[in-house]
Amino acid sequence: MLKLYDLAGEEADRRFSPYCWRVKMALAHKGLAVETIPWRFTEKDAIAFSKQGRVPVLVDGERWVNDSWAIAEYLETAYPDRPSLFGSASGRSLARFHANWSDAFMHLGMLKLVLLDILKHAAPKDRDYFRLSREERFGKTLEDIVADRDKNVRAFRESLLPLRLTLKTQPFLSGEQPLYADYAVFGGFQWCRCISDFKLLAPDDPIYAWRQRMLGLFDGLAANAKGYPV
Amino acid sequence: MLKLYDLAGEEADRRFSPYCWRVKMALAHKGLAVETIPWRFTEKDAIAFSKQGRVPVLVDGERWVNDSWAIAEYLETAYPDRPSLFGSASGRSLARFHANWSDAFMHLGMLKLVLLDILKHAAPKDRDYFRLSREERFGKTLEDIVADRDKNVRAFRESLLPLRLTLKTQPFLSGEQPLYADYAVFGGFQWCRCISDFKLLAPDDPIYAWRQRMLGLFDGLAANAKGYPV
Repeated sequence: MLKLYDLAGEEADRRFSPYCWRVKMALAHKGLAVETIPWRFTEKDAIAFSKQGRVPVLVDGERWVNDSWAIAEYLETAYPDRPSLFGSASGRSLARFHANWSDAFMHLGMLKLVLLDILKHAAPKDRDYFRLSREERFGKTLEDIVADRDKNVRAFRESLLPLRLTLKTQPFLSGEQPLYADYAVFGGFQWCRCISDFKLLAPDDPIYAWRQRMLGLFDGLAANAKGYPV
Repeated sequence: MLKLYDLAGEEADRRFSPYCWRVKMALAHKGLAVETIPWRFTEKDAIAFSKQGRVPVLVDGERWVNDSWAIAEYLETAYPDRPSLFGSASGRSLARFHANWSDAFMHLGMLKLVLLDILKHAAPKDRDYFRLSREERFGKTLEDIVADRDKNVRAFRESLLPLRLTLKTQPFLSGEQPLYADYAVFGGFQWCRCISDFKLLAPDDPIYAWRQRMLGLFDGLAANAKGYPV
């Protein structure tokens, strides 16, 4: 069976990496069973075989792949008879923008709202690492970063306008059915839901309705994961 | 022959609507000849038949279509034997995000850099309309909006990171060949080139190299249009 090193918190069943969620949704889309192995930020030794220090790392027999995008491409190539993650070659290229937009834009907006909640759920041995690395990156304490989140969430919601306009006119980013572009963006929302009760979206937002559809996919794979109500 | 109402400046051959450029690139992609009709912001009567007041408006025999996205969908449906603009149904849905990201995010960043240049090239009869409508929208004079553009361009370039990351790994947003997603984003760059000598991009930016490829398509359709060197 496939194995996935999957970021976990203090509780082994709290899984909160947006990138690991992309992979789990992609595996479900392909109908591939996976054994997930809880992994903490500081457990670099456990994935040293992958010659780098971050998850997701997927192990498929003798092979391993790291990086969520590389894993999606690997699954598409290694399991061509399963439902496609991209629809077509140009679909794969197009979805890359959705993934990069999430990575380089949306996740940053989310971090500024939920960073302190991540700390609270991280494994105790990970907390110093997490605080120091993130505070160095932002040049502020975690507490200062999230201090105005009740106000800042308005700007965050406005910044999702391209997503909102798209989901006003179609049920999924990929059209009538979800494909990898949907999983790429959804990973961020699921990550937040797993470690924070903060309300990222207003209930009348088309993005909220899309997130509900995503949560329900594959018999509620994401909805049933340990986390908070949205 | 198809006819397109196409935003023009004081000089009839200076065409500077990002949305009209999307349509012209899409028509060229389909190999469809078009007669473009120069149109100014205040010439609402000329397109009153379309029951709204903005270009692009495409006229195809007895039919007309307005709105760049609706026109792309129309062309795809009406000319199915010509090269596809979307590659597939899911490709069409995916490209909608690229178009919405341009409309709701990238164009706004561009406007803050080139608004005053638009005024300088607008038809004299359009200038009051243009200044008043835009100053009301931004709550500032055009001069104030662009005052710090030499500094603000850095943040603009940073804000294009999702585009940059994507074009680092593939020649076009749609993969090996351009499709509508490329035209949707390129429209904004061509709009700026047509009315401003301001350097939006650094020459070592992967987005710059992509823009060069886009300018050269269809025997230099966009490169040969009246505008400034990039």
